[in-house]
Amino acid sequence: MHSFKELIAQFSQQFDQWHFPEEPKRLYNAASHILQIGGKRIRPVLCLMGNELFDELHQDAFQVGNAVELFHNFTLIHDDIMDKAPIRRGHQTVHTVYGDPAAILAGDVMLINVYEMLNKVQSRYKQRIITVFNKAAIEVCEGQQIDMDFEQMEPEQVQYDDYVRMIGLKTSVLLAASLQLGAIIGGGSEGNQEHMYAFGKNIGIAFQIQDDFLDAFGDPDKFGKQQGGDILVNKKTFLLLKAFELCNAAQKAELKKLMDTHPDDKVARVLDLFRSCKVDAWAEKEKERFQQQAFAHLEDIAVLSARKKPLMELADFLLNRQQ
Amino acid sequence: MHSFKELIAQFSQQFDQWHFPEEPKRLYNAASHILQIGGKRIRPVLCLMGNELFDELHQDAFQVGNAVELFHNFTLIHDDIMDKAPIRRGHQTVHTVYGDPAAILAGDVMLINVYEMLNKVQSRYKQRIITVFNKAAIEVCEGQQIDMDFEQMEPEQVQYDDYVRMIGLKTSVLLAASLQLGAIIGGGSEGNQEHMYAFGKNIGIAFQIQDDFLDAFGDPDKFGKQQGGDILVNKKTFLLLKAFELCNAAQKAELKKLMDTHPDDKVARVLDLFRSCKVDAWAEKEKERFQQQAFAHLEDIAVLSARKKPLMELADFLLNRQQ
Repeated sequence: MHSFKELIAQFSQQFDQWHFPEEPKRLYNAASHILQIGGKRIRPVLCLMGNELFDELHQDAFQVGNAVELFHNFTLIHDDIMDKAPIRRGHQTVHTVYGDPAAILAGDVMLINVYEMLNKVQSRYKQRIITVFNKAAIEVCEGQQIDMDFEQMEPEQVQYDDYVRMIGLKTSVLLAASLQLGAIIGGGSEGNQEHMYAFGKNIGIAFQIQDDFLDAFGDPDKFGKQQGGDILVNKKTFLLLKAFELCNAAQKAELKKLMDTHPDDKVARVLDLFRSCKVDAWAEKEKERFQQQAFAHLEDIAVLSARKKPLMELADFLLNRQQ
Repeated sequence: MHSFKELIAQFSQQFDQWHFPEEPKRLYNAASHILQIGGKRIRPVLCLMGNELFDELHQDAFQVGNAVELFHNFTLIHDDIMDKAPIRRGHQTVHTVYGDPAAILAGDVMLINVYEMLNKVQSRYKQRIITVFNKAAIEVCEGQQIDMDFEQMEPEQVQYDDYVRMIGLKTSVLLAASLQLGAIIGGGSEGNQEHMYAFGKNIGIAFQIQDDFLDAFGDPDKFGKQQGGDILVNKKTFLLLKAFELCNAAQKAELKKLMDTHPDDKVARVLDLFRSCKVDAWAEKEKERFQQQAFAHLEDIAVLSARKKPLMELADFLLNRQQ
């Protein structure tokens, strides 16, 4: 058994050794760029943990972890093009440095390499691994499209349940599938695989609620981001959508006016509104609700509770961070 | 045994029944758009033929054919974004109708579906199928990047051999791999698989030379394109690159001037130059050279020559078209 910090170190040690070919330079420099600017490697570690919950770590879990991490980075490159994002993890985005064409192509070649990695796992579970992976991969794309569709709509037009579903697709199914893929390799039963998946899916949504909460109410010194960054750009978040449900007509009108006019004190005034309609308290409860659902699924997995410790630690790290 | 026309009909009959999900609409309408505007379905038919050269048609050849055709259409969507192409097969391109973000995402979701199809083949050759497919898929991306790199260079800077290699990657390896994948399913030996691959690769290059030749010298009424379309936009083609090798200094200077100044009679004058330095005769010989290499590989495959007839017919259809 390993702690998640040990697993991150083990995973990175082999993942960072893997390299793209030298030529064509522009293509592979673009692909390498996103890998070199880091990332927390949470998804592959979930895959290793899913394996280790049921059995000793198997080489295939590293292989699938590599695939999942590469896929995640592929989505970041293409999402940044779609969102015209200039900065990612404090560095220029791939398309900003190499242009859209090389960035599109770098993402494509990374996605093909994902399947080169998945193709290396043992044939006894290869079909199942690729099936579970593909389901999540397609859902991630669908989530990105729904997110872009929502961006074109007014906040009141977006139903809360649809928003939760979108966040689930865009950010949680890959976490969930990573755990499930690990469980497949570790020999977990189908029922246990499903519990792993549900644990990951709920943790992912709880994490996103917290992320939205910290962007608004977090200590910017600890959180490392500008406070209210989401508010400044009118981003649809759990908080904003819920505010439109909880506010009265006058508050709603004020919120809309602030979103339309961008006064200098916009962030402070939106936060005041959020507090008046108790969106902050709601968010803490809502995060707690998803977190409890996650832990209920983890509890239902019939293995010694000591084996679950690293997963509990990781969930705690993800969901109770102040920074 | 089936003729290639019968195989196109059989393939299309099942391929056209396959559909993307309904939602998210924008994503899947974008993906469906490229499939609805047709295409010759040459690659999947090569896969069926590769199978049938060695054995009865197997369902897996249709599955892999679907994957190859879907992959080809994915590359068209993304290439059209990179090239900012407004028209494809006489219709608006996907990104023109749906915007770059949905077009990028539609390509991505198609590529994932490619592997969903490949994942359905029998496990006894699944690893080999995915390995051969991935090699070609990566090379297609590399070819696209090299092509874009060449577009930034002066024609004299591009070496002829490098250009042939680029065309091989961008347009021929997928034809070659389609045949090889079919041969794997049909149970062809490794040596025969390699002959199939080399046959396809050489046919692909010969086809591209012919395509460049017809764009310049073909009868526009029969060919269905504007005569000299490539010349008008200074596209690097087999003819242009070879002209820079074969022309004398004065001819070269004139060619460059025509490319820089775009006079009204540009096409006619470039064609005159091509004829003066005998690029037209060279192209016919060069096409013949690749065609001969292709047929030598086909001859070396030890099956009854009657089984090779559909492949000969297809090669003849591709390489001796006047339109």
